[in-house]
Amino acid sequence: MEREVYMDYSATTFVKPEVLEAMNPYFTEYFGNPSSIYHISRMNKVIINKSKQKIADVINSRRDEIFFTSGGSEADNWALKGVAFANKDKGKHIITTTIEHHAILNTCKYLEKQGFDITYLKVDKDGFIDINELRDSIREDTILVSIMFANNEIGTIEPISEIGKLLNEKNILFHTDAVQAITHMPIDVKKMNIDMLSMSSHKFYGPKGMGALYIKKGTNIDNLIHGGGQERGLRAGTENVPGIVGMGFAIDIANKTMNEENKRLVILRDKLIDGLLKIPDSKLNGPRKNRLPGNVNVSFGGIDGDILLVILDDIGICASSGSACSAGAIEPSHVLTSIGVKSDYAKSSLRLTLGANTTDDEVKFVIDKITDTVEKLRKNKVEN
Amino acid sequence: MEREVYMDYSATTFVKPEVLEAMNPYFTEYFGNPSSIYHISRMNKVIINKSKQKIADVINSRRDEIFFTSGGSEADNWALKGVAFANKDKGKHIITTTIEHHAILNTCKYLEKQGFDITYLKVDKDGFIDINELRDSIREDTILVSIMFANNEIGTIEPISEIGKLLNEKNILFHTDAVQAITHMPIDVKKMNIDMLSMSSHKFYGPKGMGALYIKKGTNIDNLIHGGGQERGLRAGTENVPGIVGMGFAIDIANKTMNEENKRLVILRDKLIDGLLKIPDSKLNGPRKNRLPGNVNVSFGGIDGDILLVILDDIGICASSGSACSAGAIEPSHVLTSIGVKSDYAKSSLRLTLGANTTDDEVKFVIDKITDTVEKLRKNKVEN
Repeated sequence: MEREVYMDYSATTFVKPEVLEAMNPYFTEYFGNPSSIYHISRMNKVIINKSKQKIADVINSRRDEIFFTSGGSEADNWALKGVAFANKDKGKHIITTTIEHHAILNTCKYLEKQGFDITYLKVDKDGFIDINELRDSIREDTILVSIMFANNEIGTIEPISEIGKLLNEKNILFHTDAVQAITHMPIDVKKMNIDMLSMSSHKFYGPKGMGALYIKKGTNIDNLIHGGGQERGLRAGTENVPGIVGMGFAIDIANKTMNEENKRLVILRDKLIDGLLKIPDSKLNGPRKNRLPGNVNVSFGGIDGDILLVILDDIGICASSGSACSAGAIEPSHVLTSIGVKSDYAKSSLRLTLGANTTDDEVKFVIDKITDTVEKLRKNKVEN
Repeated sequence: MEREVYMDYSATTFVKPEVLEAMNPYFTEYFGNPSSIYHISRMNKVIINKSKQKIADVINSRRDEIFFTSGGSEADNWALKGVAFANKDKGKHIITTTIEHHAILNTCKYLEKQGFDITYLKVDKDGFIDINELRDSIREDTILVSIMFANNEIGTIEPISEIGKLLNEKNILFHTDAVQAITHMPIDVKKMNIDMLSMSSHKFYGPKGMGALYIKKGTNIDNLIHGGGQERGLRAGTENVPGIVGMGFAIDIANKTMNEENKRLVILRDKLIDGLLKIPDSKLNGPRKNRLPGNVNVSFGGIDGDILLVILDDIGICASSGSACSAGAIEPSHVLTSIGVKSDYAKSSLRLTLGANTTDDEVKFVIDKITDTVEKLRKNKVEN
């Protein structure tokens, strides 16, 4: 290994030391079950609410509209199944897109088996939905629209405000998977007319196994997890207090440094994109504008993306060929297929996502190494 | 506060320092997403399997029959809903008991709304089910039986081997909520004919927000959380690697020390029971035999259990009036009601659960303080 360069921040992030430090006392010292009434437990109820307030502040919701989950996947499952089953007498039609995370797509497939009807909106060559197509897809029995805030593979930021405005007029519930977006752009659930929003702590330097679902007050939703009275009866299970503390600290730090960090990342991102596009027969996947600050996704004609990943790993570069959740899959990415990338280019794609420790020097190193590697792989291919 | 005495180990436990130490590197250093292919992620796949093996060894299952969840409540919800929806064409009848944890009972209530038919077995005055009643309750359309291994409030250990034998003969799936039992008694899912078993890490000195469901190979069960391919496609969501490591370490430690620790706890438990029963008009709730090693549950005639708890908290004694999950509820415990404890005795009940740090000296202190407090409360009542 020449040098360790982590460029897969969209897959997961490390926990920041100050976040872990904040969590630590809650494992061993302040370990009381928040549902108990004695002193070491009462304090934990307070700390849970403080953490909720920090999250609520970031998206401009009320504190009591934040519900902790075990991560983004649980939040997505809860939003879709919870609304579907609670409102099935009103209608059984749900609208989503073809480029959602598998936590949405596979939940939709399950709901189809349970008798729900799902419309999958197409996206254009950069991954944007068409607001007119959305409008035309709405039916009398449409109970929910779920459209991701920003795409995990190609970084496309969807026109959430426009979507929210339309759905608010039509009085249809709007859920957005904001796992990749939150702390990378300003989010205001009130102004954007968002009814439900999923987030995941380990994408913003908080602990794994923690997420949250924002649920607008008054939303008709069933539990995904029934049981004790935690989370005001809507999500059972003893609260993961250290995780909750960590998530609150992490989102607060990430939000406070967001503007500055985004400026820095956009410069590094564009430098990386420009550098990689100098490689012959390379193509950017996803848009140049309205793209996540840290997202780069490039295809290299004739290259096997998985072999490229393995060589980069040998060098010390941690990258992804798509979503980490489907890594190892033989099928080309459903997102790249949806934006019309041909199979061979989809299979040669490389996702590099930048974050807190990414430096200008790392970007230069990665451009050099990928340029060399692609050249060598192509040369070997010709020679063989 | 005179002295801090924690006697609510069934509500939750602290994380043991060696467990936290094992978890720590996975927050900051080995933080890679296990679904990614590069070096810092590949190692995490290995560590996840090691942790599964530790859990499998404790219950004599295969490693690939262990599925991580966010806790006991998720495991219970998954087992019941997953089996119910996957087998609904075969039948819609489920059998459980009246003394289950709310994660089971409230899931059953939800399933009733979805068209399932639930039989709630009664229990005797000590909390034991009647195997003959179970046999008689089985119908052609019975798809699942869920009976807890040991009760969280009164410590009753159900005749799991007998139940498993019967259900195996009848070819009906058997789930047991073993959240309170695991690491407190030997469990062998093969010998006991258990098809599914729920557990929770924070009950055995592991981290909160972590649990597991054992699912016997070949069991027909739907996902509760759909999405990525984690947990062999059965439970989506980026794995909580530090939590998984912690749970594995914790269960291993608890299991290795179980026999010795049980002997110690049984002596302390019986001393505490005998001491408290010397208080006039006091009654033990739950059995003397086949009772969890650390469980004490006593009622004191004429006493308001919540006032007693508050006074004990002032002294420094952390105790519970029932399940932590329903603490604060005004209704008397459904478990005490089920075993025929009259309302005023149910409302005067106190649960003390012993664990790793409990000493003989603490037991003496608690007996003295409770004896004094009950006497004073009764005296005040007479004087007022």
